[in-house]
Amino acid sequence: MIDDRSQQTADWQRHPGAYGNRRPSALRAAEIEPFRVMDILGHAQALQAEGRDVIHLEVGEPDFPTPPPIVKAGIRALKAGQTRYTPALGLPELRAAIAGYYRQRHGVTVSPARIAVTPGASGALLLALAALFDPGDELLMSDPGYPCNRHFARLLEVRPVGVPVEAASGFQLTAEAVTRHWGPRTCGVLVANPGNPAGTLIAPAELAAIHAQVRARGGWLLVDEIYHELIHDREAPSAAGLGEDVLVINSFSKYWCMTGWRLGWLIAPEGLMPAVERLAQNLFLAAPTPAQHAALAAFDPATLGILNRYKAELRARRERLLPALRDLGFDIPIKPEGAFYIYAGLGRLADDGEVFARQLLKEAGVAITPGRDFGQHDTTRHVRFAYTTDGARMAEAIDRIANWLVRRSAA
Amino acid sequence: MIDDRSQQTADWQRHPGAYGNRRPSALRAAEIEPFRVMDILGHAQALQAEGRDVIHLEVGEPDFPTPPPIVKAGIRALKAGQTRYTPALGLPELRAAIAGYYRQRHGVTVSPARIAVTPGASGALLLALAALFDPGDELLMSDPGYPCNRHFARLLEVRPVGVPVEAASGFQLTAEAVTRHWGPRTCGVLVANPGNPAGTLIAPAELAAIHAQVRARGGWLLVDEIYHELIHDREAPSAAGLGEDVLVINSFSKYWCMTGWRLGWLIAPEGLMPAVERLAQNLFLAAPTPAQHAALAAFDPATLGILNRYKAELRARRERLLPALRDLGFDIPIKPEGAFYIYAGLGRLADDGEVFARQLLKEAGVAITPGRDFGQHDTTRHVRFAYTTDGARMAEAIDRIANWLVRRSAA
Repeated sequence: MIDDRSQQTADWQRHPGAYGNRRPSALRAAEIEPFRVMDILGHAQALQAEGRDVIHLEVGEPDFPTPPPIVKAGIRALKAGQTRYTPALGLPELRAAIAGYYRQRHGVTVSPARIAVTPGASGALLLALAALFDPGDELLMSDPGYPCNRHFARLLEVRPVGVPVEAASGFQLTAEAVTRHWGPRTCGVLVANPGNPAGTLIAPAELAAIHAQVRARGGWLLVDEIYHELIHDREAPSAAGLGEDVLVINSFSKYWCMTGWRLGWLIAPEGLMPAVERLAQNLFLAAPTPAQHAALAAFDPATLGILNRYKAELRARRERLLPALRDLGFDIPIKPEGAFYIYAGLGRLADDGEVFARQLLKEAGVAITPGRDFGQHDTTRHVRFAYTTDGARMAEAIDRIANWLVRRSAA
Repeated sequence: MIDDRSQQTADWQRHPGAYGNRRPSALRAAEIEPFRVMDILGHAQALQAEGRDVIHLEVGEPDFPTPPPIVKAGIRALKAGQTRYTPALGLPELRAAIAGYYRQRHGVTVSPARIAVTPGASGALLLALAALFDPGDELLMSDPGYPCNRHFARLLEVRPVGVPVEAASGFQLTAEAVTRHWGPRTCGVLVANPGNPAGTLIAPAELAAIHAQVRARGGWLLVDEIYHELIHDREAPSAAGLGEDVLVINSFSKYWCMTGWRLGWLIAPEGLMPAVERLAQNLFLAAPTPAQHAALAAFDPATLGILNRYKAELRARRERLLPALRDLGFDIPIKPEGAFYIYAGLGRLADDGEVFARQLLKEAGVAITPGRDFGQHDTTRHVRFAYTTDGARMAEAIDRIANWLVRRSAA
């Protein structure tokens, strides 16, 4: 976390004048770091505006369209005038459909009363953190990890404590690490399963052990499962089955390809739901209504058939990209089992992921994400590839990277 | 603000068992009060489930459908596959369209670079408060006022300071009151113009005087204008014209009848926009994409023609409801100039607005909002009527209230 106002002051100094004797804006805002990938994206767009062809392997968003049955349900809802507020926790029929999904897909009984439909997983995380934690409370999370998580905590004056993780544990927390890092102000643990940036899984027994340790300490376990339907090599149970005290965050964005609709959900202990509902009433009013109606088609067999074809395509991309990157000299000790990411060590290729990513974009027209976006622990020596681009373009990207590396070492 | 965990403990005790030795949830969550109107709504729905006919004068949501040109634009966007993330601050063409609205409607130049498209006005308020204020900072706001405002502040550990306002100032802050209540920790002032619950306006000269006082003290003025297009009796300038240092919050929900789409916007000083963008990236990713495309039709002449007919209908309802309520004995010293609310003192009719609202619902089938939802200052002696129900039903509601009052005084 940046511990001064340098970012803020820089923002401010670019715009002198109209602000008089105002103090600079909140320390909170100053401490929220920009995504470095946004700089990459900005450069990429500038290059594209000059007519350059850029291949995007940086974007954490599937390139598939929302399945037509979902789109059609959304259009039907709009035509029927379904454009007013829903209840704060969501349409009862959607909460019931999500409960049905846990029953059928995972064999887990989750009462619809424990499900809050939210504006994206972002909304779910905000509700969970706001309901559970007070200022000064500490929340353990992996470093590297999804950057928004620590920023959400910061927003609420909750202290995100990054626990360094490495390839040995699949870039995930372990029960041992949780125990070792648990302190007097620790109140909970947040994991993502599969994780971002590495796409790796916590083994079911390890997650159960983490849960037991957290529970024994009177804390809360939060599990982000937004990539859980994108696990390629095995079936993995949902953390919702570990106990009613586990908070599960999920989203229609990734597997269901509904990013722009902004729809997710939170499963929380029943005793917490009145607080969750009060927070939702105040912070959101409700999740977007057209999206909620569209998502009623999310669990239809026709939809799931389409999504499983998308998923098979993602798996095929991984099977192609992973060995290609290893051949090029990237250090990827663990095969990612899920999501659509490969977290690659730079090995002997380079020293600094941010410089590497910028040069790769400028000189070869391939955009990737610097590891530094994901935390502090050895992240400058990593980059993340997202296989969210179709096979032909991905193959072209691999060729470009290969040729660029050859040119570079020849130079 | 509730200052203990009684609400929280009550939630918790209803669900003993699975939570082991967990501490109860965050003090923050415990201190966020439920909307009392939600109890009324719950009772209303229970009555309706029993077959009772209930007239809703409690809901702060227009009963008009989203104008067809907006719906059609939304459907076109869905058919064209516009379902992926937009930039964090919104579609550039929508930001430009909003800037055009300020230019044409208000003669004010607002750079699109100063406009953030947000998930509802809620998202705009969250961004503004998170960007400007740190824990312990104090924010002046009217009491009574829109309840979510103080809860948003509480979420961020910012202290909402309710300034008692009365009919004499139109239930709005004045420059004098701001000056009198400004303390060493005060960092800003939040007003709504027109206000909720009273639908009253701050005169342009008064708002300019408030701005001057706030600016002189190095604070920030935030103006919620979500009802600004629903001013019935005069033209009022937007606070965006007062200076680039004023933060303006607005929404497509009320005038444009897009509540369920969840779309609003924030105008902020240009120097604050990098912080606003970083916060938006982390907290929302972006506002809902279908809604943003739909809103591109919000400023079309065809849309505005429809909306002006809606607005005329609201005005006609006010002209009917206001004298009727006064005739019945409600104390309404100020004619509300905008929004779709009437904030009515109970006069000699009753002592407690919450009891009054509950009885009125149960015995006459009319749902209204207890004044207590809006703050502490003399709010128990008030109720709020929303004229968001069509003329015939509203006339029926007036009859029901009249007959009920007669029965009550005869009993």
